[in-house]
Amino acid sequence: MFFCYMSIEGNDNALLTITWDDAGLGSVRLIDQTKLPETLEYIVCKNHYEVANAIKNLSIRGAPAIGVAAAMGLALYAVNYNSNNKEELFSGLWTAYDILLKTRPTAINLKWGLDKIMAESAKYDTVHEIKENIIKMVKEMSDDDIKANKNMGRFGSDLINNGDVIMTHCNAGALATVSYGTALGVLRSAKESGKKISVFATETRPVMQGSRLTAFELIYDKIDVSLVPDTAVGYLMMNKMIDKVVVGADRILKSGHVFNKIGTYQVALLANSHNVPFYVAAPLSTFDLESDLDSIVIEERSADEVVKIAGKRIAPKEVRVFNPAFDITPPNLITGIITEKGILNPPFEKSIFEVFEIK
Amino acid sequence: MFFCYMSIEGNDNALLTITWDDAGLGSVRLIDQTKLPETLEYIVCKNHYEVANAIKNLSIRGAPAIGVAAAMGLALYAVNYNSNNKEELFSGLWTAYDILLKTRPTAINLKWGLDKIMAESAKYDTVHEIKENIIKMVKEMSDDDIKANKNMGRFGSDLINNGDVIMTHCNAGALATVSYGTALGVLRSAKESGKKISVFATETRPVMQGSRLTAFELIYDKIDVSLVPDTAVGYLMMNKMIDKVVVGADRILKSGHVFNKIGTYQVALLANSHNVPFYVAAPLSTFDLESDLDSIVIEERSADEVVKIAGKRIAPKEVRVFNPAFDITPPNLITGIITEKGILNPPFEKSIFEVFEIK
Repeated sequence: MFFCYMSIEGNDNALLTITWDDAGLGSVRLIDQTKLPETLEYIVCKNHYEVANAIKNLSIRGAPAIGVAAAMGLALYAVNYNSNNKEELFSGLWTAYDILLKTRPTAINLKWGLDKIMAESAKYDTVHEIKENIIKMVKEMSDDDIKANKNMGRFGSDLINNGDVIMTHCNAGALATVSYGTALGVLRSAKESGKKISVFATETRPVMQGSRLTAFELIYDKIDVSLVPDTAVGYLMMNKMIDKVVVGADRILKSGHVFNKIGTYQVALLANSHNVPFYVAAPLSTFDLESDLDSIVIEERSADEVVKIAGKRIAPKEVRVFNPAFDITPPNLITGIITEKGILNPPFEKSIFEVFEIK
Repeated sequence: MFFCYMSIEGNDNALLTITWDDAGLGSVRLIDQTKLPETLEYIVCKNHYEVANAIKNLSIRGAPAIGVAAAMGLALYAVNYNSNNKEELFSGLWTAYDILLKTRPTAINLKWGLDKIMAESAKYDTVHEIKENIIKMVKEMSDDDIKANKNMGRFGSDLINNGDVIMTHCNAGALATVSYGTALGVLRSAKESGKKISVFATETRPVMQGSRLTAFELIYDKIDVSLVPDTAVGYLMMNKMIDKVVVGADRILKSGHVFNKIGTYQVALLANSHNVPFYVAAPLSTFDLESDLDSIVIEERSADEVVKIAGKRIAPKEVRVFNPAFDITPPNLITGIITEKGILNPPFEKSIFEVFEIK
């Protein structure tokens, strides 16, 4: 096992989820999140197929992280292309685009990252220029992700009071982004600004991102964290044990509807019923201003995620399973959306258009 | 592995959770529910310590089942007592009573079962009479539990329509009672009356009674069942996939407040928010007309239930855990309480007093 650290403002050993490595033709190094919290191991991807597999099997997950991963997958295709035919390169890039896009359907950042690379690449004339610039682009994208998270953190931190107990669901942390995190970035920033906070992390069945990832990275950064089963959210709210909820997002529509990890909707509804403010933290790359509510595919994942844990079967063989990976939180349950450009307040149709400067 | 079947009206091989065995001095045979769904194994208890351990480690669980188990634990003490001093026997019975009562704090049926045996035993003059009648009592208690469940089933079945999709949480089935079940008894009865029903069972973290027990016994009885993570309850409700919810109870106060498995409260609140009727099925032995809301202890169980699955650690070693085993559903979220004497409707202060004939 080896560790990969990164120095970002004021933190010399922040977790770095995904990096571009220039050695050789270039490769993508990412934390294998299926191995956490037991071991912090890295996977090195040499081509877009390996990146696609890493996204599909959840070695890397989290909307902003898979946006950057997919973009780096395209970059790998480009650097591995060993001829000089620009048209042929683009045809291959589009094939790689399709393979990467199909890995997971719900998070918009995947498409955002791929589209950005394709649009920028089209600006250059030669294969050589494309190869050079595509690497520059994915590195910038990676830096921008961290900057956005730090800005989100600063804006979001203003919402947190000294002594607050915060609930979060799933993992919207360093491990869901390049580094620092969205929802957990807000908590990191609050702590860095000297506020005392404590966190209740939901386990987040079935994939246990709360137990495995959020608990891991909050302990790693010495933020006070307690784990609770997803069934205990109502109990905590009823007993006034939660001051605020902060979660991430996989896709936000112009109406303010938030697609996020299964269970988010019920946490939001419980928060609303108990007058607990409910915040979503997400970069602008998570917004989808085109799509209608009904057109988004909610990914259904394998029954094995539910009936097996650590390879051991925990339910009868014959049982059917329904395992949707995401749900939709309607805007009326959301107190505010924390972005790198500031906090968006209701009505979200208006504040979302304003932040995108759409008239 | 061997199987233990019982013939109860119309079902020659119903699951039998706990039985008194007359062979020798007498023993208690119970399904080891920690081994389900992998194997259907039985534990034979020869004294009250073994019964107490079986209750503590969840080999037997479910409010009505542990009520009968505790009573049988007292009976084992009595049959093992080998002198003729009635006072000495009673002193020993009270010690056993304390040991059995302390196994789990939240379900009232435990105390109900113990109190019933102590009160009845006090009516007899000799050790011999007490021994004889205590065995008769626990067998009657066992028969009465099944009768109550069958009656609950008949009343509850009237609430179920042909084609209904029913959600249940935790396991309020044959495995939570002597046989047939409370909430799942209602579903069995609906099916027996010719109605087509299907069931969504929540996994019920952390102990997974839904995956391990409810899925097991519904498949055993050929009732259509699908398993969902506890995080998907909101999704199912939002998408109008649930017609009714039926759950069990560990304790019901005279106000209609229902103590039940952690997660019940949030299922009830979600049902209420989506206009889905929410029913509780419980025998009269589950009612506690004495206690106030604040006086009931909500059991907190070991962190290991949350951070380990099948012996494998799934969360970092350093993480703190909050693991309350029960929550409280307030009466305003409950559509009706199904008992062996009929359906109790709101206002519950009134209907509960009426069914107990309190003026």
